[in-house]
Amino acid sequence: MTPEPDDNASGRPRPDGPVVAVDANGADLGPGEVMAGVALAAEEGARVLVFGPARELGPAPEGVTVVDAPVSIAKAADPVRAVRSTEDASIVQAARAVAAGEAEALVCAGSTGAAVAAGVLNVKRGAGIYRPALALPLPVPVHPVTLLDVGANADARREHLVQFAYMGAALASTVLGVQRPRVGLLSNGHEAERGSALVLETHAALAEHDAGDFLEFVGNVEGVDLVSGAADVIVTDGFTGNIALKVMEGVSQATVGAIRGAAKASPVAAAGGMLMRPALRGFRDEIDPERQGGAYLLGLRRLGIVAHGRFTRAGFAQAILRARLGASEDVVGRTHAALAQAGALRVAPASVASATVAGR
Amino acid sequence: MTPEPDDNASGRPRPDGPVVAVDANGADLGPGEVMAGVALAAEEGARVLVFGPARELGPAPEGVTVVDAPVSIAKAADPVRAVRSTEDASIVQAARAVAAGEAEALVCAGSTGAAVAAGVLNVKRGAGIYRPALALPLPVPVHPVTLLDVGANADARREHLVQFAYMGAALASTVLGVQRPRVGLLSNGHEAERGSALVLETHAALAEHDAGDFLEFVGNVEGVDLVSGAADVIVTDGFTGNIALKVMEGVSQATVGAIRGAAKASPVAAAGGMLMRPALRGFRDEIDPERQGGAYLLGLRRLGIVAHGRFTRAGFAQAILRARLGASEDVVGRTHAALAQAGALRVAPASVASATVAGR
Repeated sequence: MTPEPDDNASGRPRPDGPVVAVDANGADLGPGEVMAGVALAAEEGARVLVFGPARELGPAPEGVTVVDAPVSIAKAADPVRAVRSTEDASIVQAARAVAAGEAEALVCAGSTGAAVAAGVLNVKRGAGIYRPALALPLPVPVHPVTLLDVGANADARREHLVQFAYMGAALASTVLGVQRPRVGLLSNGHEAERGSALVLETHAALAEHDAGDFLEFVGNVEGVDLVSGAADVIVTDGFTGNIALKVMEGVSQATVGAIRGAAKASPVAAAGGMLMRPALRGFRDEIDPERQGGAYLLGLRRLGIVAHGRFTRAGFAQAILRARLGASEDVVGRTHAALAQAGALRVAPASVASATVAGR
Repeated sequence: MTPEPDDNASGRPRPDGPVVAVDANGADLGPGEVMAGVALAAEEGARVLVFGPARELGPAPEGVTVVDAPVSIAKAADPVRAVRSTEDASIVQAARAVAAGEAEALVCAGSTGAAVAAGVLNVKRGAGIYRPALALPLPVPVHPVTLLDVGANADARREHLVQFAYMGAALASTVLGVQRPRVGLLSNGHEAERGSALVLETHAALAEHDAGDFLEFVGNVEGVDLVSGAADVIVTDGFTGNIALKVMEGVSQATVGAIRGAAKASPVAAAGGMLMRPALRGFRDEIDPERQGGAYLLGLRRLGIVAHGRFTRAGFAQAILRARLGASEDVVGRTHAALAQAGALRVAPASVASATVAGR
């Protein structure tokens, strides 16, 4: 397209690239904070379609369209039922906008359960994909690693985990900037013969597939490898992944808390803690989960991102920019192509398969 | 028994209580360090039967008998095969001494795999027990919690996890001093309806059983509850337990390391770190794994403890004293009685069942 004459005196990039649909309900700080994040992303040229209570969202900046959708199901006890029964919920409307092609990626600020349910029921699974997965780039200093599934499915089969490996690698190479990601399989030992029955089967399947230059399967990794840098992507079922993640959060907070407690143990120690504060702030910034934009919902026909409800505007802006990047880098299409090459797509009747191929 | 006239001028307690069999091979610091731990335990009145290289163990203090057993299989790649094929291995001889009634508990300093294999093959499972489990009291400040299984079995069924709950509670109440332990089931959510298929089944079974005053089932707990104090005992399969434990170790070390790194970031921060050092030492002591004696091998006809290979003499002494306590408090018999009351023992043909009841 021919560039229009530049009347943009502010130096801000023009709105450009894929549209991102945002559900503004569910954030701890309210829809206004999400909208502030939308505005920050718009300053970077993001095009955004926001679903939320228009009254609380205020005026839309350039590149942003607000759809009044005040109904929230972010706190629903049964997200699947809520998604099915609440057509006007903001997350449902946002997911439908993505399904209809009005937007190319989905970002939500509220409950993971509602986002997964709305994604699966409305955006729907990608062609040949068994199950979606939630992938979380862990805020590990020096050695970033993406863990999936962190909780979309409590139980998994071998063929699911094999697909998760490719889905995670596609995310890492396009959105997180890791070339030919090293993918590890979470187990209770590094050796190929260590693991649950599920892990043994999955290990054998991943070792057999030809992943070409798409990913490097580095075999089994252990719990400690969440922070060791042994892999760029770590694959596990949603039960184990959720537990690993929660242990990580709990232990990290408890350790920092204990050290903070130690720093209050005596006036001398307190003085020491005060002197260390600026250095510790750098560490805290490094492990700030807002830097990664949230958890990535993979395996649907479009990319989704579930920002944490606790995020501030900076985190929501990051989620939108990452979603835009994932859409323009075609995470979904690349995942499909790599799975097809590896022979790891779900086998479906030919008519269904041709009808559901992600048409990009 | 009538007390003998006291000619013990040192004021040390006389050797008394159950004999503990110790495998002195496999420790990183060598058999001599294990023997130093034996000597410390003997000073507390422990009676110990030590299997290891007599040449390296030196003279036996009062209450201690050394059996020359220089052959070690602590580094064997296939522990089960090594246990079967190496009759004179120190761990095999120690386990056989326990099986023969020459000692009432087993402590080993070497490989977990060899200890589990020697225990299962020689000491054998307790009456009505499906599977042994490894239980580890986690070195969590303020909120100690025992996690099991941390790796004896990679896969588990509902009836195994139910028994683990009782085995862990028996350990906590007798050896760790927790009255009516609160037992939680590790899951990806607190709600009873959250979890893998295995967890859902196990939750229902534990909620149904009548545990009397033996334990309190507090339902599902999450990864963060390893450090929250929500339960005294946390039950899971050996695959998940191993991963949770390794994540905990890795994150704890990485956090402390990052803070140490931050303390070196500038001269001011370094001064602060120096001032905090004494307070941090207290924290380090609290999370010292040697204080708990090691991992407890439960579900056999006698109690076993696998001390960490990295331990010093203090840790080995603690393992021996804890093993003695567990034997005199009858962890095995109490576990059996509670499982019988709850109707959770393995059902076996009557003749076999009566022949294998732990005869205490």
